[in-house]
Amino acid sequence: MMATALPGLPERVTIYEVGPRDGLQNEDTVLPAGVKAEFVTRLAGAGLRTIETTSFVHPKWVPQLADAEELLGLLPRSPGVRYPVLVPNERGLDRALALGATEIAIFGSATETFARRNLNRTVDESLAMFAPVVDRARAQGLWVRAYVSMVCGDPWEGEVPVEQVVSVASRMMDMGCSQLSLGDTIGVGTPGQVTALIRAITDAGIGTDRLAVHFHDTYGQALANTLAALQAGVTIVDASAGGLGGCPYAESATGNLATEDLVWMLDGLGVETGVDLRELVSTSRWMAGRLGRPSPSRVVQALSPGSEQS
Amino acid sequence: MMATALPGLPERVTIYEVGPRDGLQNEDTVLPAGVKAEFVTRLAGAGLRTIETTSFVHPKWVPQLADAEELLGLLPRSPGVRYPVLVPNERGLDRALALGATEIAIFGSATETFARRNLNRTVDESLAMFAPVVDRARAQGLWVRAYVSMVCGDPWEGEVPVEQVVSVASRMMDMGCSQLSLGDTIGVGTPGQVTALIRAITDAGIGTDRLAVHFHDTYGQALANTLAALQAGVTIVDASAGGLGGCPYAESATGNLATEDLVWMLDGLGVETGVDLRELVSTSRWMAGRLGRPSPSRVVQALSPGSEQS
Repeated sequence: MMATALPGLPERVTIYEVGPRDGLQNEDTVLPAGVKAEFVTRLAGAGLRTIETTSFVHPKWVPQLADAEELLGLLPRSPGVRYPVLVPNERGLDRALALGATEIAIFGSATETFARRNLNRTVDESLAMFAPVVDRARAQGLWVRAYVSMVCGDPWEGEVPVEQVVSVASRMMDMGCSQLSLGDTIGVGTPGQVTALIRAITDAGIGTDRLAVHFHDTYGQALANTLAALQAGVTIVDASAGGLGGCPYAESATGNLATEDLVWMLDGLGVETGVDLRELVSTSRWMAGRLGRPSPSRVVQALSPGSEQS
Repeated sequence: MMATALPGLPERVTIYEVGPRDGLQNEDTVLPAGVKAEFVTRLAGAGLRTIETTSFVHPKWVPQLADAEELLGLLPRSPGVRYPVLVPNERGLDRALALGATEIAIFGSATETFARRNLNRTVDESLAMFAPVVDRARAQGLWVRAYVSMVCGDPWEGEVPVEQVVSVASRMMDMGCSQLSLGDTIGVGTPGQVTALIRAITDAGIGTDRLAVHFHDTYGQALANTLAALQAGVTIVDASAGGLGGCPYAESATGNLATEDLVWMLDGLGVETGVDLRELVSTSRWMAGRLGRPSPSRVVQALSPGSEQS
């Protein structure tokens, strides 16, 4: 297919691949580290340049990622490919530093209820916990990404006021983080809300050069929200190969925006991503086989042999 | 959730529901007419005001809709609810007229290959077949919708030139049709292509007051394309309750844009549709039970009890 541009969109989008971390941590199946390493390596081979690989959260909470050390040891270091890892606290940072990680991410919440449920802390307490993590990481020269979750809605609190998101995001960025990822963790947001949120964030001084969006497709809105975000100036988009990862906080098995569905749109729009869609689909089909369930990505389904029967 | 508008969108969108026709005709299961009548009645009860109900195509081609006469006889006539029916030719028009149909649709193709495969005719021959149908229907005071299919791509011909779509659409509208529906039958289109196509159609003199869009979610693009179409001035959107209907011409089981996913977005944007989402989801869950398979609608999945396990 030839590409047809849509005026006002960026020429290039950076895809921040979250499948190995945000995807696999929400899958029931626990995979061997060797399979995960092959997954990450194949994703890099498909052209993804930033791949969030694992999390140094306590294995008690996320047993799927208990092999973080082993996995990082198996990854080939390729020039131009970055493997950020999630660190929940200083203990996690210690583990990441010991392995020579150069990019980390911290994961905050825009809402009190989710902060308590996910981090076992108030929002203030969680920010107090992150401050020394960012300080120490920055002192070591690490690149730090700040996630803010539940930016559109929260299962317990309903719609989340924009000012609340801006406040938490600003406090995390003021610590010295290099990039902010706005996460609609339960996938309830719609394009007007996304646009208003991005405007409020940029008005607060966090420019689109430091801003990513992270959508879940729980209500089918992820790609439309992404389009709205691109129209609002965003150029960094989180996505998960094959749509891996259910959302444990929403009543649905549907998880992250599938990288393939995003790449299909961007290819069609003539927006460069550097990703080879066929390689990516092939990787996600292989991973679906390892997980023993079909990929929820529409593109992976459409391009897989044997799916011609409706 | 509160609504957040996106500047430039219409205040109100008319949903043209295609589930009973375009949805069920592509489902393997053949349902009794009584179940279909209950389906249509429940859709009207959920606030849908235009419901394409069935097709007068020969039962040999679409056995799922062989009960068109019986079904129409079972539908309650409600003021304000319209039940268009698809008619492929004059024989179909005779059947529709005999039953007192007041709204019909004809189904053309933008490409020669699909015209030959679906209509067993060239594009010119198919238009020659439609001309007397539209003439006679108009003479009887019927409202006529013109579908143009394969407007973004064709499985055999690849990308379809915009001029080709405009030419077929103009010829059908010049016959005297009241509304045009642009169908991305295989779901390959992306928002730039959609925007360019709508611009070309309106430049050709077919205003957005007479223009609908019809997207399939085969590659996950349907809702993003709908957003682009609304931004280009479209106010009539085709959708299928529960996402019913695979696409027999694409290698995927994923069919029409789900009405629920559309309504979720429009509700979130504060765009009026008159549709009660909960009633609609309840109807689609009931229909999924009759068809013996889960609804492909993300919203239906997310709002269905028992789906909380990822």
